[in-house]
Amino acid sequence: MRVELINTGDELLIGRVVNTHLTFLGDRLLELGLRITRQTAVPDGSEIRDAMAEACGRCEVLVVTGGLGPTSDDITRDVAAELLGRALVKDAGVAEAIGDRLRARGRECTTTTLRQAMVPEGATVLGNPHGTAPGLYVPATGQTPHFFLLPGPPRELRPMVEDYVLPELRRLAGDGGVPEVCHYKFFGVGESEISAKVEAPLSEVPGLQIGYQVEPTNANLRCIGDRDAQVAAREIVTRSLGDYIISTDGRSLEEVVVALLDESGQTVATAESCTGGSIADIITDVPGASRVFRRGFVTYANEAKSGLLFVPADLICEHGAVSGQVAAAMASGCLEASGDDHAIAVTGIAGPGGGSDEKPVGTVFVAVVSRGDAAPHVRRCFFPFDRLHFKASVTKTALDTLRRKLLNLDLA
Amino acid sequence: MRVELINTGDELLIGRVVNTHLTFLGDRLLELGLRITRQTAVPDGSEIRDAMAEACGRCEVLVVTGGLGPTSDDITRDVAAELLGRALVKDAGVAEAIGDRLRARGRECTTTTLRQAMVPEGATVLGNPHGTAPGLYVPATGQTPHFFLLPGPPRELRPMVEDYVLPELRRLAGDGGVPEVCHYKFFGVGESEISAKVEAPLSEVPGLQIGYQVEPTNANLRCIGDRDAQVAAREIVTRSLGDYIISTDGRSLEEVVVALLDESGQTVATAESCTGGSIADIITDVPGASRVFRRGFVTYANEAKSGLLFVPADLICEHGAVSGQVAAAMASGCLEASGDDHAIAVTGIAGPGGGSDEKPVGTVFVAVVSRGDAAPHVRRCFFPFDRLHFKASVTKTALDTLRRKLLNLDLA
Repeated sequence: MRVELINTGDELLIGRVVNTHLTFLGDRLLELGLRITRQTAVPDGSEIRDAMAEACGRCEVLVVTGGLGPTSDDITRDVAAELLGRALVKDAGVAEAIGDRLRARGRECTTTTLRQAMVPEGATVLGNPHGTAPGLYVPATGQTPHFFLLPGPPRELRPMVEDYVLPELRRLAGDGGVPEVCHYKFFGVGESEISAKVEAPLSEVPGLQIGYQVEPTNANLRCIGDRDAQVAAREIVTRSLGDYIISTDGRSLEEVVVALLDESGQTVATAESCTGGSIADIITDVPGASRVFRRGFVTYANEAKSGLLFVPADLICEHGAVSGQVAAAMASGCLEASGDDHAIAVTGIAGPGGGSDEKPVGTVFVAVVSRGDAAPHVRRCFFPFDRLHFKASVTKTALDTLRRKLLNLDLA
Repeated sequence: MRVELINTGDELLIGRVVNTHLTFLGDRLLELGLRITRQTAVPDGSEIRDAMAEACGRCEVLVVTGGLGPTSDDITRDVAAELLGRALVKDAGVAEAIGDRLRARGRECTTTTLRQAMVPEGATVLGNPHGTAPGLYVPATGQTPHFFLLPGPPRELRPMVEDYVLPELRRLAGDGGVPEVCHYKFFGVGESEISAKVEAPLSEVPGLQIGYQVEPTNANLRCIGDRDAQVAAREIVTRSLGDYIISTDGRSLEEVVVALLDESGQTVATAESCTGGSIADIITDVPGASRVFRRGFVTYANEAKSGLLFVPADLICEHGAVSGQVAAAMASGCLEASGDDHAIAVTGIAGPGGGSDEKPVGTVFVAVVSRGDAAPHVRRCFFPFDRLHFKASVTKTALDTLRRKLLNLDLA
């Protein structure tokens, strides 16, 4: 089955945004045993017409992203109606949903906005809980492929792909052997190390295909194959890399940590310097986090470390704010101040300024302590990255240290 | 001048790598006043032939990346020769360079490797100091556009673009006026509202082109045109939407807020419930944030609000933790506890649980107070979005409220 993807939007062609739709869809389709046979990016406006018309003759499934908004250069739905030879009709349900959404936010529903409620006759509306423009699906006709028209913003497109597009494609592709897929999400081990440890044995598992996905702070391994291949693969991966596996069910590190705490009825508090609140932030990204997280301290200045976490000013003077001693004192003080079961503390140099020969930019100390511990566990790490990547790496490393402690694994 | 880009490689279409060539080239070309009018990605192999042949009829410049390597599915140079109706001939200089490079690394120079030394007759070889495959340039003929064939690895492609492609394109484009680009970054106003307010008057500015870019929590407007058009556009946009303009120089909301505080030597502290540290987190994403930000409180539980921010337990009982009264008390308590010049506080219902008829999921109260104020400014907002989008919206809204206060603009 030939699947083509057309991405619309000036911003893609002038270097303003990266085309993440292509990577996302390419990756998700591969799991159905499908491949994108051609991808085209065109600016907003009439180029959309040419690209869609040409693609119609080449493929059985055409996915178009963007161009469904309210403005005059959003012409995807018009072109689809034209190619189908059908009229655009107002969908009452969509019009109502748009009106409700805007009224809830105290905004007006204009004629322009309501262009988004026009759909080609006979199209199936794909609900968009995250925005106003719905997606559209039109099954193949003699002249046209299956059309999936999807909104441009990733947070609107992605749930729609999961909820409507993939199930429909799975149905269209038939049962002809959609393979099983297992995603190993790791933390603390890179792609080359994963490859060195498991690629050779995995290559001997019959019918198994593997692939890597690299995220900013971790690498994932994807195994595609039948049930027997998956069992063999799991044995190999667990043996070599068991402690680094965060999940095989898609859960993030923060979801795993919150679940571990929740299961045992425990709580954690945070004391953050260089991460500036980012650890608390991702913990509270998890629904239900309030059961395990009650408070966090962002102690960016030294006097905040002393005032809120009882870190002696002398200790900061003697060892520096970025030191194992101060990280340990922050963690102990956080446990004392919060009354929680565990405390995480971090102090480091995010840069671009503030580094020294002994402690260059990228140096960080992570401390974790639990009620009843003789002393905090402290580790020194080095993440010589840009500021945002540094913060993200420290945040995940701190959470992973707690994960390992909760699971009684080796603490790095 | 129509410029098309063809990217070859299976890895682009199965989600293995992001197409950074497109963003890199799109961005660099825009600076020459050129735009990529279409970009196509195809797998290695015969699809390259179709895509190149089709593009020849549509553009004056065709850039192809990848498919110049030694293996049998690297057919870019063969297709170019075919389209040009010229033979492939061995380039002695390239063959020698390949041989030298391989010998230096202790490898043999095979017949397969030497395919990379075959070039269409009359092509200009673009040297590749970072790899074996050279780039190729063939000027336009009656039937074919200017061909630039470039190697796939970014560290080979990028220097070649800077050293050969851009200078050549600059020469081809002539002096015909490289346009100016102005990006208006907004907060608190959506794409439809921007369009309703400025699209009609902007459409009457001669030679002005506009486009929108929607980010998760804000919309941006881009204006392209000459100096006169930019002056006229700025007048229109400022008159209708002045208070919503965050920047026209690419700076983010948090960068603008940190700069405003820094310029006046002032500091801010944060008291966060539903955002869980996210406000502190994005403030500290800005280099130099430590000059304006010293501490933040993440008071997720009620006892943390009382213990750290002196919010009376009675007040929470009477009005609920999510109320204007509690937001105001958190802000005042934060100012008192921190000794900073400004305090931001937020309390809301991120969901998915915890909503009521009176205060549904998505309800949030934002309070901002400055030293010397009679009382905090409190606003109630409603962001009925998923949890992460809710947190991001509240975070940006809180910062924007401070921005407006610092600039003496209307507080929403």
